[in-house]
Amino acid sequence: MSGEVSFPSAALLIIGNEILSGRTQDANLNAIATRLTGLGIPLKEVRVVPDIEGEIVAALDALRARYTYVFTTGGIGPTHDDITVDAVAKAFGVDVVEDPEARALLAARYEADKLTPARLRMARVPRGSSLVANPISGAPGMKIGNVFVLAGVPDIMRAMLDSVVATLQPGPKIYSHSVSGFIGESLIAEELGAIAARYPLIDIGSYPWVRDGKFGTALVSRGTDEQAVMRASDEIAALLQSRNVAFSRSAG
Amino acid sequence: MSGEVSFPSAALLIIGNEILSGRTQDANLNAIATRLTGLGIPLKEVRVVPDIEGEIVAALDALRARYTYVFTTGGIGPTHDDITVDAVAKAFGVDVVEDPEARALLAARYEADKLTPARLRMARVPRGSSLVANPISGAPGMKIGNVFVLAGVPDIMRAMLDSVVATLQPGPKIYSHSVSGFIGESLIAEELGAIAARYPLIDIGSYPWVRDGKFGTALVSRGTDEQAVMRASDEIAALLQSRNVAFSRSAG
Repeated sequence: MSGEVSFPSAALLIIGNEILSGRTQDANLNAIATRLTGLGIPLKEVRVVPDIEGEIVAALDALRARYTYVFTTGGIGPTHDDITVDAVAKAFGVDVVEDPEARALLAARYEADKLTPARLRMARVPRGSSLVANPISGAPGMKIGNVFVLAGVPDIMRAMLDSVVATLQPGPKIYSHSVSGFIGESLIAEELGAIAARYPLIDIGSYPWVRDGKFGTALVSRGTDEQAVMRASDEIAALLQSRNVAFSRSAG
Repeated sequence: MSGEVSFPSAALLIIGNEILSGRTQDANLNAIATRLTGLGIPLKEVRVVPDIEGEIVAALDALRARYTYVFTTGGIGPTHDDITVDAVAKAFGVDVVEDPEARALLAARYEADKLTPARLRMARVPRGSSLVANPISGAPGMKIGNVFVLAGVPDIMRAMLDSVVATLQPGPKIYSHSVSGFIGESLIAEELGAIAARYPLIDIGSYPWVRDGKFGTALVSRGTDEQAVMRASDEIAALLQSRNVAFSRSAG
């Protein structure tokens, strides 16, 4: 679907040494992918970069020039390794300023004597940003241009995502239908390829799996034309039926 | 650690619409990150791209020019949506050829009449590749230049990774030590920043967590100088002790 300009698209920039070192298993990619797919906004690219300003700026510039929306996760807390706000400001060529609304949110959460410089760091935003609510821990995310700057902690990220999805321009609904059976994909590859060739606008994916030592394949038809998705999926089901293979069908 | 040229580095290119749509939760990033970190080869960038040849080629070219090793996962099966081999060949400017050794591996696995064109597709490699063993399902991965082309199915990917790690040039051992306690990171952010400033070669990360509704922080010191890692971690432990916070320490 690359190259279309009229439909929304999205990219994700995951910021964090802990993901790259293997210390932390990312959970945000899948949550964001699922949510955006449900809105008809295909996630088209993801990058994971370390906590290095130049790396964040370069990746963000590449992504924000190309996709309708860019989401970043990670690096917006109060500590020295939280450099996302400064990197985003640099990418946009703007200053970092203390946002009065963000300061008020933090002031409402902490007593005056606990509104420490570290906590006030979380009121810093690239100039021109609007805030993204954080109902869990107070410190807001932000939006500037087409970039949403979200937290890395999954619970907080999801809460922030909840608060911004209503502002996104949805795309055409994406329909998906799966046929999954106990057959190796190589045994149906040729016929499957022929079906895929007959439905050029339907994305037909073949995903092998192993269950209790037996090989199987999930055959997923996806696209914005519901009728075509179902016709393609019917043809795939008929193919498995012709092989006397046990299979199941499901939406999604 | 960016900019060092004498130590090995790595990048990962995850190829697959199913990751971007949210249908499949990636498990390979964390497995590869953990394994490479154990070898002293820092994973410095990850990209996820769809099953589109131009996207794969562009990402692969960007990564292979910059890092010592690039690993790809996904898209090397027998079906129409498995286009990684062709994309890798295009990136390297070489033909795709049938590899005699790969054909022999497949022939040994399947009876002659079951060595279908679809299965033989899995013997296709970019010219000049060497094979990566696949002890689980036979069809090999491959290596060309500094790029390792691995399967997407996690069990198979890990088996392939096992068979190539001995060929990688290890880097200096990376030491890691964590201090984790029931304290919000904003309450120690300033002192932590001062410790980080005193240990410029140690990567000190602050990772907030929520457990049973209580906030805590894991403070991780990482680097190749074991003594410095431990000294930094001792200072962090002393900081938590000074706040009368319950904490635990661990390697990793």
